[in-house]
Amino acid sequence: MAVKVYGIPLSTATRNAMATLYEKGVEFELVTVNMKEGAHKRPEHLKLNPFGKVPVYQDEDVTLFESRAINRYISTKYEGQGTPLFGKTPSEKALVEQWIEVEGQNYYPAMSPLNYQLFFKKMFSGEGPDEAIVATNVQKLNAVLDIYEARLAESKYLAGDFFSLADLSHYAQTEYFMKHSGKSDLITSRPHVASWWEDISNRSSWQKTITYGSS
Amino acid sequence: MAVKVYGIPLSTATRNAMATLYEKGVEFELVTVNMKEGAHKRPEHLKLNPFGKVPVYQDEDVTLFESRAINRYISTKYEGQGTPLFGKTPSEKALVEQWIEVEGQNYYPAMSPLNYQLFFKKMFSGEGPDEAIVATNVQKLNAVLDIYEARLAESKYLAGDFFSLADLSHYAQTEYFMKHSGKSDLITSRPHVASWWEDISNRSSWQKTITYGSS
Repeated sequence: MAVKVYGIPLSTATRNAMATLYEKGVEFELVTVNMKEGAHKRPEHLKLNPFGKVPVYQDEDVTLFESRAINRYISTKYEGQGTPLFGKTPSEKALVEQWIEVEGQNYYPAMSPLNYQLFFKKMFSGEGPDEAIVATNVQKLNAVLDIYEARLAESKYLAGDFFSLADLSHYAQTEYFMKHSGKSDLITSRPHVASWWEDISNRSSWQKTITYGSS
Repeated sequence: MAVKVYGIPLSTATRNAMATLYEKGVEFELVTVNMKEGAHKRPEHLKLNPFGKVPVYQDEDVTLFESRAINRYISTKYEGQGTPLFGKTPSEKALVEQWIEVEGQNYYPAMSPLNYQLFFKKMFSGEGPDEAIVATNVQKLNAVLDIYEARLAESKYLAGDFFSLADLSHYAQTEYFMKHSGKSDLITSRPHVASWWEDISNRSSWQKTITYGSS
């Protein structure tokens, strides 16, 4: 059975799963879930993910949801091929896990509401941003990015001097933030964060992901 | 070097790390961070965790923050002793990771604001709850718990018929919620969720954690 990813190329979490598969050199089939028509809330999709979200990953052994869990699974299953995404030692892996959690519990909770308010909301509901939510999350994101700036002054990537799943986990939210939030200066004004983003976003895994389907 | 956990016995994330160490039978020293006096925001602690939070885990190989990363590291390093916390096969581990992410991205983001509004806020600021925040998060938590109820009707624990780090990750927030939120009926009204909580909260790892320091 070929690897299947149920999702859409514009979904942030689907994109991070695609980028992980590209880094590991794993072929996959993207099975479109027509979210505009509500396919993610229909029984056949809820059997795959009861939360009604994308992506869902499927191979001969597992059906999985939650993108960070999917990406850990791919990185472990295909440990011997492509880019090592957990570093090379248990201590490096520990730091990769630490920074994946920082992304999930600190970076994402600040950046995701900004991407929603400043970009997706208009598309989905036609409404403009709630400025109070924007202000709160800009403040949170600034505090997080100050810590990233200090960290990235010490090491080239988040978990050390090697690219890992920790860096990759930042791809999709940061891409929309840089292109569509009108607040990319939060990244570009911090030299080490800016260089890091320039570096990782130019990796072929990410370039293939964001140009998926165009030819 | 003995294992050190920097934190306080009342901190939710510190408690989950302690419970993980108890499950694996690892001795540790709890190094108190006097949060009432702001010790977590002082330079010596910020060197351990730039986010100024607890717990921090330290052994001869690593210094780590973010409790879910700490707990994964302990579960992996001490794989051969105590309770297997990732299951026994790659597919079981994948499901453990999936449900750890469900906790981090769905359960915790709904329950943690409720514990803050309905319990900790009064203690920290003397103020009462913001009822709009309470209502929003009760709604979110109900939706999450409906999915848990369906899942726990199929398998004894979240990742399958074995206790794992996925279940353990729910300990500390649920403990405060059951005892102090006034909304424990969200759990007790769902028979499978209620039995699951009854089961896991009676494990000796959790009982030792919540009675730490009393004798």
